Amino acid sequence: MKELMNYVEGIKDEIIGYRRDFHKYPETGWTEVRTASIIIHELISYGYDVKYGRDVIDEGSRMGVPSGEILRKAYERAKENGGKLEYIEDIKDGFTGVVGTMKFGEGPVVGLRFDIDALNILESSSDDHLPFKEEFASVNEGVMHSCGHDGHAAIGLGVAKTIAMNKDKFKAGSVKLIFQPAEEGVRGAKSMVTKGILDDVDYVIGGHIMANEEFGSLVCGNNGFLATTKLDVKFIGLPSHAGGAPNEGKNSLLAACTAVLNLHSIPRHNQGASRINVGSLIVDGDRNIIPHQTTMKVETRGQTTEINEYIKEYAERIIKNSAQMHDCKYEIDYVGESICATSDEEIAGIIQEVGKHTDGITSIQLISDKPSGSEDFMFMVDRVQKNGGRATYFTLGGAQGDFKPGHHTQGFDFYEEILPIAVKIFTNSLEIILSNNK
Amino acid sequence: MKELMNYVEGIKDEIIGYRRDFHKYPETGWTEVRTASIIIHELISYGYDVKYGRDVIDEGSRMGVPSGEILRKAYERAKENGGKLEYIEDIKDGFTGVVGTMKFGEGPVVGLRFDIDALNILESSSDDHLPFKEEFASVNEGVMHSCGHDGHAAIGLGVAKTIAMNKDKFKAGSVKLIFQPAEEGVRGAKSMVTKGILDDVDYVIGGHIMANEEFGSLVCGNNGFLATTKLDVKFIGLPSHAGGAPNEGKNSLLAACTAVLNLHSIPRHNQGASRINVGSLIVDGDRNIIPHQTTMKVETRGQTTEINEYIKEYAERIIKNSAQMHDCKYEIDYVGESICATSDEEIAGIIQEVGKHTDGITSIQLISDKPSGSEDFMFMVDRVQKNGGRATYFTLGGAQGDFKPGHHTQGFDFYEEILPIAVKIFTNSLEIILSNNK
Amino acid sequence: MKELMNYVEGIKDEIIGYRRDFHKYPETGWTEVRTASIIIHELISYGYDVKYGRDVIDEGSRMGVPSGEILRKAYERAKENGGKLEYIEDIKDGFTGVVGTMKFGEGPVVGLRFDIDALNILESSSDDHLPFKEEFASVNEGVMHSCGHDGHAAIGLGVAKTIAMNKDKFKAGSVKLIFQPAEEGVRGAKSMVTKGILDDVDYVIGGHIMANEEFGSLVCGNNGFLATTKLDVKFIGLPSHAGGAPNEGKNSLLAACTAVLNLHSIPRHNQGASRINVGSLIVDGDRNIIPHQTTMKVETRGQTTEINEYIKEYAERIIKNSAQMHDCKYEIDYVGESICATSDEEIAGIIQEVGKHTDGITSIQLISDKPSGSEDFMFMVDRVQKNGGRATYFTLGGAQGDFKPGHHTQGFDFYEEILPIAVKIFTNSLEIILSNNK
Amino acid sequence: MKELMNYVEGIKDEIIGYRRDFHKYPETGWTEVRTASIIIHELISYGYDVKYGRDVIDEGSRMGVPSGEILRKAYERAKENGGKLEYIEDIKDGFTGVVGTMKFGEGPVVGLRFDIDALNILESSSDDHLPFKEEFASVNEGVMHSCGHDGHAAIGLGVAKTIAMNKDKFKAGSVKLIFQPAEEGVRGAKSMVTKGILDDVDYVIGGHIMANEEFGSLVCGNNGFLATTKLDVKFIGLPSHAGGAPNEGKNSLLAACTAVLNLHSIPRHNQGASRINVGSLIVDGDRNIIPHQTTMKVETRGQTTEINEYIKEYAERIIKNSAQMHDCKYEIDYVGESICATSDEEIAGIIQEVGKHTDGITSIQLISDKPSGSEDFMFMVDRVQKNGGRATYFTLGGAQGDFKPGHHTQGFDFYEEILPIAVKIFTNSLEIILSNNK
Repeated sequence: MKELMNYVEGIKDEIIGYRRDFHKYPETGWTEVRTASIIIHELISYGYDVKYGRDVIDEGSRMGVPSGEILRKAYERAKENGGKLEYIEDIKDGFTGVVGTMKFGEGPVVGLRFDIDALNILESSSDDHLPFKEEFASVNEGVMHSCGHDGHAAIGLGVAKTIAMNKDKFKAGSVKLIFQPAEEGVRGAKSMVTKGILDDVDYVIGGHIMANEEFGSLVCGNNGFLATTKLDVKFIGLPSHAGGAPNEGKNSLLAACTAVLNLHSIPRHNQGASRINVGSLIVDGDRNIIPHQTTMKVETRGQTTEINEYIKEYAERIIKNSAQMHDCKYEIDYVGESICATSDEEIAGIIQEVGKHTDGITSIQLISDKPSGSEDFMFMVDRVQKNGGRATYFTLGGAQGDFKPGHHTQGFDFYEEILPIAVKIFTNSLEIILSNNK
Repeated sequence: MKELMNYVEGIKDEIIGYRRDFHKYPETGWTEVRTASIIIHELISYGYDVKYGRDVIDEGSRMGVPSGEILRKAYERAKENGGKLEYIEDIKDGFTGVVGTMKFGEGPVVGLRFDIDALNILESSSDDHLPFKEEFASVNEGVMHSCGHDGHAAIGLGVAKTIAMNKDKFKAGSVKLIFQPAEEGVRGAKSMVTKGILDDVDYVIGGHIMANEEFGSLVCGNNGFLATTKLDVKFIGLPSHAGGAPNEGKNSLLAACTAVLNLHSIPRHNQGASRINVGSLIVDGDRNIIPHQTTMKVETRGQTTEINEYIKEYAERIIKNSAQMHDCKYEIDYVGESICATSDEEIAGIIQEVGKHTDGITSIQLISDKPSGSEDFMFMVDRVQKNGGRATYFTLGGAQGDFKPGHHTQGFDFYEEILPIAVKIFTNSLEIILSNNK
Repeated sequence: MKELMNYVEGIKDEIIGYRRDFHKYPETGWTEVRTASIIIHELISYGYDVKYGRDVIDEGSRMGVPSGEILRKAYERAKENGGKLEYIEDIKDGFTGVVGTMKFGEGPVVGLRFDIDALNILESSSDDHLPFKEEFASVNEGVMHSCGHDGHAAIGLGVAKTIAMNKDKFKAGSVKLIFQPAEEGVRGAKSMVTKGILDDVDYVIGGHIMANEEFGSLVCGNNGFLATTKLDVKFIGLPSHAGGAPNEGKNSLLAACTAVLNLHSIPRHNQGASRINVGSLIVDGDRNIIPHQTTMKVETRGQTTEINEYIKEYAERIIKNSAQMHDCKYEIDYVGESICATSDEEIAGIIQEVGKHTDGITSIQLISDKPSGSEDFMFMVDRVQKNGGRATYFTLGGAQGDFKPGHHTQGFDFYEEILPIAVKIFTNSLEIILSNNK
Repeated sequence: MKELMNYVEGIKDEIIGYRRDFHKYPETGWTEVRTASIIIHELISYGYDVKYGRDVIDEGSRMGVPSGEILRKAYERAKENGGKLEYIEDIKDGFTGVVGTMKFGEGPVVGLRFDIDALNILESSSDDHLPFKEEFASVNEGVMHSCGHDGHAAIGLGVAKTIAMNKDKFKAGSVKLIFQPAEEGVRGAKSMVTKGILDDVDYVIGGHIMANEEFGSLVCGNNGFLATTKLDVKFIGLPSHAGGAPNEGKNSLLAACTAVLNLHSIPRHNQGASRINVGSLIVDGDRNIIPHQTTMKVETRGQTTEINEYIKEYAERIIKNSAQMHDCKYEIDYVGESICATSDEEIAGIIQEVGKHTDGITSIQLISDKPSGSEDFMFMVDRVQKNGGRATYFTLGGAQGDFKPGHHTQGFDFYEEILPIAVKIFTNSLEIILSNNK
């Protein structure tokens, strides 16, 4: 364990360098063309067997893929910003996943998963925002790594290098480094699971830097993730002049507002927490025209997969009947989905063990059931466990002192010293798992 | 004309006597057993050819018939209160219409229509309420003639006697005295029209005393009546404990409240006035139980029959989808209906002519288009006009000085001096029509 | 312990006799005049120091007291049905609590609480409903002991007799038998707490028979009770004719329906479960009148007292603004309330210990956090704990074989063999507590 | 009359030329910089006394003025597109009104009003759309003269030239040619009235080409215009994470949807038609964030100014209470307004007289009460009438054969032969009025 720890310490600046590069060129879900092409390039250079594009992404299982125009612009931008040209043709158009495998011998396959996408947020240009001050703030206006996936991608490359450069430490089994696109909006994991990437995996570990948690606080298994479904809804009516012929229109806004009030009125479930939100509702019409087209962005959540199903089905019924009540048509498009799954204490215990021996870890909790957001890594957990394997998802506090910014905010940042710590946890856990299974 | 005027003047007290008797024993729609039996008895005594019960009411076209228990109680009460036993068996159970015909010779048939039902209102027992002071207030608790139909029935009998006792004045044609039940809630007229009572009628006249209008003010043709539909709605869900299993219930109140807000939101119609009201909504459940049954009383109205249809159909769609949205069942029961129709200026002109020669008439208007309530006499107007005949509906102000009480209020009363005036208008108009058509 | 067990076994039929008597003469909250008067009579006969009426109930803290007429009728009925005339004058008008105290020596005061009220439910007259078959079904039509409080009252008297007849077993301390009215709707406990009944109590135990749980299953401490508030709401508008002057009315139903949809839309709370229900909504108006008065029965619940407060305050804001939006007035009346509190493991452990030695107990669980309904005994728990004391609330499965009827249903019944078991648990726990504290 | 008719016939192509020029360079309300500058230039060339900019527009009474950026871009575009540089400095920034006066002698002042603004509509590029085919379709993308105000402006210049070139025909009085900006959205008239432009006017005439009416059909006085108010509404809440802390947000969308349903539920008014519409509602947030800012565009209408006031005040109350119900703030901005006013039959009769002698007029109606949209010319009518003057507003059918396109549509067009006919009606009516008042 100690040698790996020392090695990682030695490449700390390199890891931080990766992170700053990714931070400067953020790309949102399914448009991570530059990011993924660099990851491919690095993994190949470290000697991994690398697959990407349609080889690791099932086309039909992708959710919430942006429009063709957005994909095309992302591709052009990636070319301009230093994307690796030899790979980007294969990953453009929404196939930005990468999997690097290295085999050490017979034995179990261990998957390590890193998500790589950014968010549509305008980065802060305040002088007390470190990326701005140090000049690695986003150059892609309106796009920002404000959830730390730049760090995750950098950790992944740090892990890749550490393993490759210390290959002799790993005597058996294989490692599979899974770089997943489009985690934001829980859109990407399912397509990699459906493609079969997890089918031969015996253990899988994911993790997240928490900028809003005490630096070094480690939770080895997080079980509070809510099942969720993301729906785009369209109500389609008929325009007419609001003064001259109100009765000749079909009012899509009345349908939508009826839906919103009733969606929020879906009865609470007695088996646990449920959520519903309409985060966006747009009817951008003229004041004097009966509003004939209304779009909504909805999400449902449940403390169990079943509760989320209950909310989702009730919501579908509300949407349908709200539309028909006002003689409107409707469309529902499913643009994101995640389920519930539970970390295994056994493998969480290995994380805990590593944590105890890692400098910088300030507190350790084995399992937390605290309800939280959603994480489509749970699709991977579920697949591995259904095949008889084990999985866990750890979180690692990354605040800098008292500065604990909220995720998804303009001023989001984490303390980069957390990056090598995360690399140590991944690599040492891998070593233990493979040793145990020799 | 003068002789008829004088004759009526002579039987004024008798007419008022009828009115006070009917006022004391009010009966609501379809339960006018005592009232109708007395009318039958009187008409027969005056020599009319009288039909009643199932002979003048089409069973299936009746709307808003009360429960069997209410009908049975009304029948028992009628027996106790002096109903004519020889007739009540034939009119009980909701067949309380009466038609008396007298033929003078060849020529047109003139229908005169009088409505006879009371309302579910508790009569005032204030000393300044004349019926109470003079001891002819309602003895049927919670039932009251607060719309003047006691007067209308009395006018009808006054008209019957006047015609019979002056039969020689009428040389040609026939008169058909139509005593209609259940005008309140527009429930009765359709069943008499469907039965064919109006099929041989060439002219039909109806009228109303207006206690809230200046005494003696006469409007000869009223065209402001709105088409209307009365609906009883039931939403049927499933109960469950609101604390323990809110998700297991089906909430009929959420369905009903969604319906109410959307019913009021039905777009205005560009062809004229429309109305909708939910006058009653009841879910009488326990506080801690998901409300599983909700009933509503709804009415729609339109300035034209088409507008009312538009509102009604939209309302049905709202009710259906509000129910289904919350996985509830629903039932709609149609308990009243009226349409729009227009008075003929020709026959209104005859009323006007009579008015000019009638003492006590203080002002005359030929036609009024002022929007008003609904009147199921319009079904009779429509039928007669469709057969090529003529019709009108007049109103006659009956306030006592400045006291102009609202209809359907506990303190409602009119100045009884208006009764002989109304009898004069009906009988003299009849005389003119029959003379013109000799 | 053994001697008490045997004693109870010997008075089993007497306990069941009490239960059947109470079952036959059920009385709802604040009208338990007959019930309480018999309890007073029995306690005095066993030698207890007995207080009742205004001495144990704080008038102003009572919630949901019925109308004067209902109270008066209950009083008359109690006199006819065998109420003890010497006491009923002092407990009529909604003061139906009883407290019997017996002092054995110095030492702690132990409160044992029994609730005694029935529900407004029409009892089943099916032949397979035992109370009907055995002829002790309710003679008070529409009132029924369908939650087992008849059993609780009988247990209380069984406990009273067992203690009194085995007084020598109790060497120190005191027992306080608290018979509480109006537990249904969580209306009564607060008034006894405010009166100070619990102020000198060091330990308090309450319990409930669960007819829907396996016979003999014992949960020693139940912590899933939700904090709750019961609100009666009135919206007051202005009537007007729906056809003629819709704009002149003030529509209380639009206010109420807006409130209902928004009440159900109150956002979920991230700290735990919340509930809201509108179990009753009544506007009993004419179809053609703008609905001008609407009443609602509402309840809020929360997994913590704070969550319930959050829901309640949001609800108040919704009610206020829904009314004002439609230019209506509103009134809110608070008719029931309970809070959250937690059983002490120490005293739950004593129940557990007794359970282990009680024949008929089939399973034991120390503490359950399963969310459940509400219980105003929590006010007593809270008061005792705030004074440094200890408290618990146990439940005892009372199903007869596979017949596990829901509480608050027409066919509710429990297996009466559970009654002596409950008496054993109360009395033996008391003995242990007082022995421990000698 | 004949000479003016002939003169107009002679300048027909010039008038059509004006129209096509304005059509090609459409400018929306308050940005008509190019249009107004050309009008100024032409009026001056014809010898009118011309005022414009702040001299004819009251700054504070303008409604719905676009943002500074939009105004600035319009100014730049006007400079590029041939705007008259000597005037545009004075009319930029939303002061695009022009008034040209010519005095013939003592006597009455006659105002003739022409509106000049375009709409935000993308013009059709279909081959059967004449402006596209003949190459005078809009070059300003997304802006289009789809209501005929290009024609109105051209008519105004045709009128100006005809009068100036036939000045000897007009012996007394004055003419005031009023070119009004921002009629769409009823935003401009009030600012010219407030400025006093109409204060010395004795007669005022406005008119409109109706592409959707039979060519040559003339209605001399239109009284169906509805009073209206245009409101921009903002609901301001508080964001929070919809999964993690739904209770910590303030949901502006719940407020807005409650408002929408209740706005549509405002009771109908018994004095005439009312309207309300929410044409736009936008909350453009993230799916997982409680929606914290929602904007709406609302318009109210009434058949009388009083009915519109009723709807407006009710709407304000709904908006306020919907916001406060969900603890949100709100802002209401008034961006447009018009009132009701009635044409004078006297002056409508003059239009009728001219119509009878004008070739191409196919049918004539003196007065129409048919409810229609709104027209802020009514502010001018109202001001002139309050000063004792007379006013009318005529409409002139301009369909080409059976092609009767809806106004405000992408394929809108009218038959240009209607332009000289309109010029004839304006100029001949002027001649008659001034002759009558000599």
